[in-house]
Amino acid sequence: MKGKFISFEGSDGAGKTTALSRVFKLIRPTSGMAPLITREPGGDRIAEEIRHVILDPDNTAMDAKTEALLYAAARRQHVVQDIVPALKTGRTVLCDRYVDSSVAYQGGGRQLGFKPILKLNQYATGGLEPDLTIYFKIPAKVGLDRIQNHRQNKMDRLDQEKLGFHQRVNNAYDQLAKANSNRIKVINADQDVEHVVADVLRLLKNDAHLKFKENA
Amino acid sequence: MKGKFISFEGSDGAGKTTALSRVFKLIRPTSGMAPLITREPGGDRIAEEIRHVILDPDNTAMDAKTEALLYAAARRQHVVQDIVPALKTGRTVLCDRYVDSSVAYQGGGRQLGFKPILKLNQYATGGLEPDLTIYFKIPAKVGLDRIQNHRQNKMDRLDQEKLGFHQRVNNAYDQLAKANSNRIKVINADQDVEHVVADVLRLLKNDAHLKFKENA
Repeated sequence: MKGKFISFEGSDGAGKTTALSRVFKLIRPTSGMAPLITREPGGDRIAEEIRHVILDPDNTAMDAKTEALLYAAARRQHVVQDIVPALKTGRTVLCDRYVDSSVAYQGGGRQLGFKPILKLNQYATGGLEPDLTIYFKIPAKVGLDRIQNHRQNKMDRLDQEKLGFHQRVNNAYDQLAKANSNRIKVINADQDVEHVVADVLRLLKNDAHLKFKENA
Repeated sequence: MKGKFISFEGSDGAGKTTALSRVFKLIRPTSGMAPLITREPGGDRIAEEIRHVILDPDNTAMDAKTEALLYAAARRQHVVQDIVPALKTGRTVLCDRYVDSSVAYQGGGRQLGFKPILKLNQYATGGLEPDLTIYFKIPAKVGLDRIQNHRQNKMDRLDQEKLGFHQRVNNAYDQLAKANSNRIKVINADQDVEHVVADVLRLLKNDAHLKFKENA
């Protein structure tokens, strides 16, 4: 693998997607290929079809293990079809969510345990880990309020979860960040989006040694 | 679990579905609840959605591990939503395909190995095994010819596989039958459907102690 693999993590309502859409517009490579910008669950046609099953708000009867297996299936397809081929040609891959999301949401939030989810994803990814993970950290209550204010009319099945669930997700992320401090860098997501974007750009420059121009 | 759990296995072209449709019409319980008749991949709404992703003939780029994970996900949902609740109330469950299919097709046919597929399905099913499995055994060449003669215009993605794949599937089934001779009973599927149906009914009566009336 020649390219760098960078993932972005955090609980819903951390403002991750909003901040990333700005980050991705600001970075322009100074040389070589543009980075592959992607997200999970998703990627190719098959992974998107799986994403649809997972996020369908009518699928309220979905068992937690079914959900974990579906995320692993979508991830496998994403890794094989998109991420690995891009890394092999030397492209940087910027991925919104990866294995840590499954550990936090299914392992922590749904209480399936970290270890079984890690093993399942080890099988799915063949052991591919990001070089750098940027974790958008936010208090559970703040994140949940943001979701309820901004997405009231289009909450998906996962948004409908309660505060306890969000707290377990956040605790799991915190544990992951502590146990993998070399890989996972924490940014404070409880501040203005401009500051969050600046923090992300700084980490991409300094920790991932990504070279790019910023538009003013 | 009070009910009996019976699965039916065999490679495509073994005539399993045709024979089972006759068997299921012939059996009428003499007392108690009618059996739950079901199939994999499938079951509830979610499992059927996953089935659609797996069998979509346009999904030619599907990775073998993605497929294995999707089957495990559909199976999990099927077990939790349909099979276990039926068994708990004392109903017999008759299921067309179960874990052995994944071991034979993904483990053997797609060469992912028996052990990883067994472990994955142990996670998905929580270890639920059939009390009896009826294996429709047929030479790979005969099965493949049947598929090509009878389903020429509606072959799904899995049908498009070649003879070598079918031989690996059959070899895997043979190994499974040998290693689990208490659970898996073999019937010769390379004979008239009437004889196959008679063999299945005999096993359901003698080995599964299923009580039912046969319509003449």
